[in-house]
Amino acid sequence: MPELIIIGAGVAGISCAIYAKRANLDFLIFEKGLVGGQLNLIPKIDNFPGFKEISGHQLIERLKEHLKALEIKINTEEVKSLKKENEFFRVETDKKTYFSKSVVVATGSVERKLGIEGEEEFLGKGVSYCAICDGYFFKDKYVCVIGGGNTALESALYLSNLAKKVYVIHRRNRFRGFESLARQIAEKNNIEVIFNHILLKIKGTQVVESVFIKDTQTQSVKELPVDGVFVCVGRKGVTEFVDKSLIETDPLGFIKEAKTSGFFFCGDVISKPHRQIGLSLGEGIQAFFKAYEFLRGF
Amino acid sequence: MPELIIIGAGVAGISCAIYAKRANLDFLIFEKGLVGGQLNLIPKIDNFPGFKEISGHQLIERLKEHLKALEIKINTEEVKSLKKENEFFRVETDKKTYFSKSVVVATGSVERKLGIEGEEEFLGKGVSYCAICDGYFFKDKYVCVIGGGNTALESALYLSNLAKKVYVIHRRNRFRGFESLARQIAEKNNIEVIFNHILLKIKGTQVVESVFIKDTQTQSVKELPVDGVFVCVGRKGVTEFVDKSLIETDPLGFIKEAKTSGFFFCGDVISKPHRQIGLSLGEGIQAFFKAYEFLRGF
Repeated sequence: MPELIIIGAGVAGISCAIYAKRANLDFLIFEKGLVGGQLNLIPKIDNFPGFKEISGHQLIERLKEHLKALEIKINTEEVKSLKKENEFFRVETDKKTYFSKSVVVATGSVERKLGIEGEEEFLGKGVSYCAICDGYFFKDKYVCVIGGGNTALESALYLSNLAKKVYVIHRRNRFRGFESLARQIAEKNNIEVIFNHILLKIKGTQVVESVFIKDTQTQSVKELPVDGVFVCVGRKGVTEFVDKSLIETDPLGFIKEAKTSGFFFCGDVISKPHRQIGLSLGEGIQAFFKAYEFLRGF
Repeated sequence: MPELIIIGAGVAGISCAIYAKRANLDFLIFEKGLVGGQLNLIPKIDNFPGFKEISGHQLIERLKEHLKALEIKINTEEVKSLKKENEFFRVETDKKTYFSKSVVVATGSVERKLGIEGEEEFLGKGVSYCAICDGYFFKDKYVCVIGGGNTALESALYLSNLAKKVYVIHRRNRFRGFESLARQIAEKNNIEVIFNHILLKIKGTQVVESVFIKDTQTQSVKELPVDGVFVCVGRKGVTEFVDKSLIETDPLGFIKEAKTSGFFFCGDVISKPHRQIGLSLGEGIQAFFKAYEFLRGF
């Protein structure tokens, strides 16, 4: 039985694994998708101290090299459920069932949906949750970005280099994201910001043709012809697989507290105000220390 | 008047400064010695995620490049005193007196040294002050740990999973550290405890080859062949310059709590169990967010 199972191989899980390996812990690390997690979606990073500019993919390559140098193998398995049985954790993946003395949950977050008409119907036919993944399909076209946080602003900036025109539709009268991003948005000729509006529905035949937006002050509705809709209204914690008795979460599924011993968590899955690469890195190391001290009975 | 003054340009202070710059804060950052702080003393780092191996100096060069790209200037000034006057902070350096709305103290810590022959000469060549940082380099080798507190005991336990043999040399006849740790030490086959001995000198040619230890009761001296010497007689926080009414510190000068608004702290100066580059990086970013929210009145 491994001493520790780490679930998720984004920056937090990888940082935890690097420390676990160097401390000679007997551990496994699982990742259901791509190693690097959210990093896969970030075109340009300039706030990770030590890298004046790096792409998400380049940083992943560096992390992979680091894992390789330490002979850490990442198991491509999806954890379907995490329970406690007696004093051990029971980790069921799509391939096997494992038991361990401790766990570190580093599963991060996924996009939230709007839940409006056309959103599901046109998924992959104009509706996207990832500008980096799908932006290229909208070269010289008209797109809108829904949201006002950092992801929405970054997505709009990214798309403005591809699309002919980018509308940013936000329900409030100011952005939540960084001032520096808002400033860059204002400088772009082909970005039009539409404050105080919400999306009502997405219309099309085979693919998206337009969106209907409502002014939250006057209640007037208008149709905006677009080819693409990028939904960037926030994220939710990936914790559905965790037995509810083990953790306390906030309404979006992010973990506030562990309610059992030997359970640790780090990175974007934490209920917290800011999600940053550098924070995940530090939290991954902290989670290692907590797990190590738990296992060694300090 | 700047909104923020950051004191100390190690990893924590630099990370804070990078975020402060990108958020367009009006700030100053002071460093009395070398930019990079403790990094200057670390020959080889392999636990900073994203760098399978890097020297402290190389990492500093990368941080400097990052600072340059963002046009952040580090002021080489030593802060002599930090007080509060009305609602503002009064920061007196060896050159000038400044006022600011908030401060981030990131001054780190200094080791308490033994002050013996060979200690300075073989720093990074077998002499280390951090088992977690450097233990991996002594895999299957002979090492000694000097000290009897928790850090010494934790270091010895950590090293026992890597090294072939670990001597723990302590000047008293019992440990100061937790009993639970002492018990674990006793259970390890490859740890040998040598009580009532002090280190006289560290000997070697290119690297450490042995230590001379003296029995404090019989005064007899013997030579002990070792590859590594881990000096764990403690560190102290660099906080003498801070007005005592602003903070609560532990007995070694590390900051436990700020007792005034607008005062934030990050990195090794925090009263905490582990001091690591990745932790300082995350804490520097967290300190920025706290200062930013304080200044912007969130």
